[in-house]
Amino acid sequence: MSFMFDERLDGALPTVDKAAVTSRLHEVLPHMTLLSEPEDLRPFECDGLSAYRTVPMLVAMPERIEQVQTLMRECRALNVPVVTRGAGTGLSGGALPLERGLLLVMSKFKSILSIDPEARLARVQPGVRNLAISEAAAPFGLYYAPDPSSQIACSIGGNVAENAGGVHCLKYGLTVHNVMALEVVTLEGERLTLGSEALDAPGFDLLALMMGSEGMLGVVVEITVRLLPRPEVAKVLMASFDDVSKAGGAVADIIAGGIIPGGLEMMDNLAIRAAENFVHADYPVEAAAILLCELDGVDEDVHEQCRQVREICAAAGATDVRQARDEQERARFWAGRKAAFPAVGRLAPDYYCMDGTIPRHRLPEVLHGIADLAEEYELQVANVFHAGDGNMHPLILFDASDDDQRERAEVLGGRILELCVEVGGSITGEHGVGREKINQMCSQFNSHEIECFHAVKRAFDPAGLLNPGKNIPTLARCAEYGGLHVHHGELPFPELERF
Amino acid sequence: MSFMFDERLDGALPTVDKAAVTSRLHEVLPHMTLLSEPEDLRPFECDGLSAYRTVPMLVAMPERIEQVQTLMRECRALNVPVVTRGAGTGLSGGALPLERGLLLVMSKFKSILSIDPEARLARVQPGVRNLAISEAAAPFGLYYAPDPSSQIACSIGGNVAENAGGVHCLKYGLTVHNVMALEVVTLEGERLTLGSEALDAPGFDLLALMMGSEGMLGVVVEITVRLLPRPEVAKVLMASFDDVSKAGGAVADIIAGGIIPGGLEMMDNLAIRAAENFVHADYPVEAAAILLCELDGVDEDVHEQCRQVREICAAAGATDVRQARDEQERARFWAGRKAAFPAVGRLAPDYYCMDGTIPRHRLPEVLHGIADLAEEYELQVANVFHAGDGNMHPLILFDASDDDQRERAEVLGGRILELCVEVGGSITGEHGVGREKINQMCSQFNSHEIECFHAVKRAFDPAGLLNPGKNIPTLARCAEYGGLHVHHGELPFPELERF
Repeated sequence: MSFMFDERLDGALPTVDKAAVTSRLHEVLPHMTLLSEPEDLRPFECDGLSAYRTVPMLVAMPERIEQVQTLMRECRALNVPVVTRGAGTGLSGGALPLERGLLLVMSKFKSILSIDPEARLARVQPGVRNLAISEAAAPFGLYYAPDPSSQIACSIGGNVAENAGGVHCLKYGLTVHNVMALEVVTLEGERLTLGSEALDAPGFDLLALMMGSEGMLGVVVEITVRLLPRPEVAKVLMASFDDVSKAGGAVADIIAGGIIPGGLEMMDNLAIRAAENFVHADYPVEAAAILLCELDGVDEDVHEQCRQVREICAAAGATDVRQARDEQERARFWAGRKAAFPAVGRLAPDYYCMDGTIPRHRLPEVLHGIADLAEEYELQVANVFHAGDGNMHPLILFDASDDDQRERAEVLGGRILELCVEVGGSITGEHGVGREKINQMCSQFNSHEIECFHAVKRAFDPAGLLNPGKNIPTLARCAEYGGLHVHHGELPFPELERF
Repeated sequence: MSFMFDERLDGALPTVDKAAVTSRLHEVLPHMTLLSEPEDLRPFECDGLSAYRTVPMLVAMPERIEQVQTLMRECRALNVPVVTRGAGTGLSGGALPLERGLLLVMSKFKSILSIDPEARLARVQPGVRNLAISEAAAPFGLYYAPDPSSQIACSIGGNVAENAGGVHCLKYGLTVHNVMALEVVTLEGERLTLGSEALDAPGFDLLALMMGSEGMLGVVVEITVRLLPRPEVAKVLMASFDDVSKAGGAVADIIAGGIIPGGLEMMDNLAIRAAENFVHADYPVEAAAILLCELDGVDEDVHEQCRQVREICAAAGATDVRQARDEQERARFWAGRKAAFPAVGRLAPDYYCMDGTIPRHRLPEVLHGIADLAEEYELQVANVFHAGDGNMHPLILFDASDDDQRERAEVLGGRILELCVEVGGSITGEHGVGREKINQMCSQFNSHEIECFHAVKRAFDPAGLLNPGKNIPTLARCAEYGGLHVHHGELPFPELERF
């Protein structure tokens, strides 16, 4: 399938002589892997959001920081746009290549450089898989907390680029909360060290600025992450509800009770049935919603918190609360949740996974809003979400071979994100903006705010060569999309329009 | 007392016609308080770091956001530098005025706009005192966690400007971790909304960028903070050690044990004796160091954690571990710590409070390094620190009426911060850079990193009018200070030298 693709961006980019660039890069970086043949480039045409596809002009796969520095200097000098890609599992098209650009693939940066169990830090290269960090830390009783569903495949560099989350981010935070320092190569080929092992850093918080910046400010070449001690025990409760609002109420009550679960996930009836059919997790297929609540920590605390959560769920109107009796049952409870996306994927030829965040207490209202929108666009939507932190993943079911359905799915997705903004939330939770949500940025921000984003972008990349066209819309795009707050009747910063 | 003051900055600033500016501001903002007489300006000549003093040209005290917007537009048009000030309790000279600049005093923005107990958010104006937020939230069983020692007086706007911390930031984070959204007025007089009630935000993380930016990117006019439920109980343990290294070891072991105390503070012998003489907190005056460990949460957890901490301290070689028997004793234990600065202040005519952060496991080594430096400069240093997060507050004792001592104190302070950088730490923990630590920024960052700071600064403030001369050194200053990593023999960005 593919969505309506906006060709203006590539049109606005500089014209580049592929042969000249290829020859120059071979000359200055003779040992770097450089792919230029169509059959070699094809595998890189999309990331995890395969609705958008573009074959890149060239693919570079450096393996040393010095090569990245040289490459950046050359791209700057030759005016070649650069899109950086990690494992390519991103769901918002952040690593979508440019037809006239170079794709910088970081997959050869795959070393774990050091693990310091005393300081509880791991220094790793950006191409290291998320789960590989926890595996390497396991002998010390430590692990890396953020756990996107794709953790078996996604790279830590991509996690930084998108500020990835996961089931455990309510308790342990997003990627930004678990990265202590970054080494970054700028477009000028200079190295920056941002952050340190200390809690606070002087000057502007460029470390936080870099997190989730989708490769638009520099290339991350080294990452120092915090490691946490493995919790002594983890228990899972599954509560069933005959009404999604009651489940939403229970979420609020658990948090209000001062309990911070390791994970607090919610699924609606369509998602429950899909998961149950797929992996037989022993889910209650008649329930309107289930909550999965994982409590982790030291044994006595967890025991006491399980008691409290059971009570809270019962008081909130749960029809049933079950605690996994053993590790096997705990794994089964989670298997359903973890397989929810592919499970829902079996219900229709295609699905479109959204990612919005809302204030937790607006949950019931937003669920009703999504149901109304689904009806309006005549599409089914299954809801799976990180309820504890208000991060929703509505899954829109459709058939991409039907042009009309495909278009409705795309518009419905945008409307759902706009609903998130209306209730005071955000158009992203953990997947980033990328190419996918660029129009919704116009709903989230006014023109002055978007101007600020562009000004920050120019501070790092005056030539506009780093991942142009992602994350931040041009003001012209917003004006067309109808979301722009025009100031004194004029578009500010007309010179920005080429980005 | 006063430190060596660098006059170059004011010399580099634009020449401003005070009479013309005053008359124009009276004209466009007739209802705004504007002070221009020397006797009215004098009280604003310094903030909490009184070693630096400058009487501002003008003091403006707006009370509405629209007035701030107009004021900023006028200052931009008239080329008048602006320093924003909260309650003036900052310890790094971040709100030090400019002789040729306007001081924007936010003290009339003192309303708590709303408290939403369900969403656990408070929306407040920047002039609201830190403690006033917790007082207003108390009827709902909620409080605002970051608690600088100055919390009775300091304003939340100042906390944002310096990314303030406090005793509880190990468990509950710095200001950046407790602010959900900001309203900011730019130098162009435009309003920006940064952040939301949701956990993640799309685009670049301008909310984090604004935190700790010391009024150099915009003026914060509204703040939405997270509120937390008051812990059910809080208990304090005091452990005594005959060696600071053993106390440092106990800190590491407590954290390694998976315990996150609400507060974990350490004092060395000089600080212990000073505090005991001053407030009679029942401290062991013979101890080389004490640890104060507060554990908060639900009753059963706290009880269990107290047992664990007692065991850990004993195993680490504590000579005594006492638990406060009641609230009265708990208050007494804390009274000594909270009065440590004024108590140490009684030992010498003057003291200079430093603020550096180090990786926790380097604590014993850094304490030895400080002792060696103190000997080298022939000055006494008392150590008080937030041990849990590695944030140190060495207090240098000296007599400011003795020029030689004053100079040695200033140089020793700088050397201590540089030691923090050498072990992988940072020159600030919670007090910011301000005017005080601007030379040490040259040790912390290389020229490319400092260039990035300037580029970000220009993105928001191309004219360089917002708090010039604070937080980020010019590259020329670093070159003079000897800390600059010069690139290809040239100073990059010579046009920056006017900042």
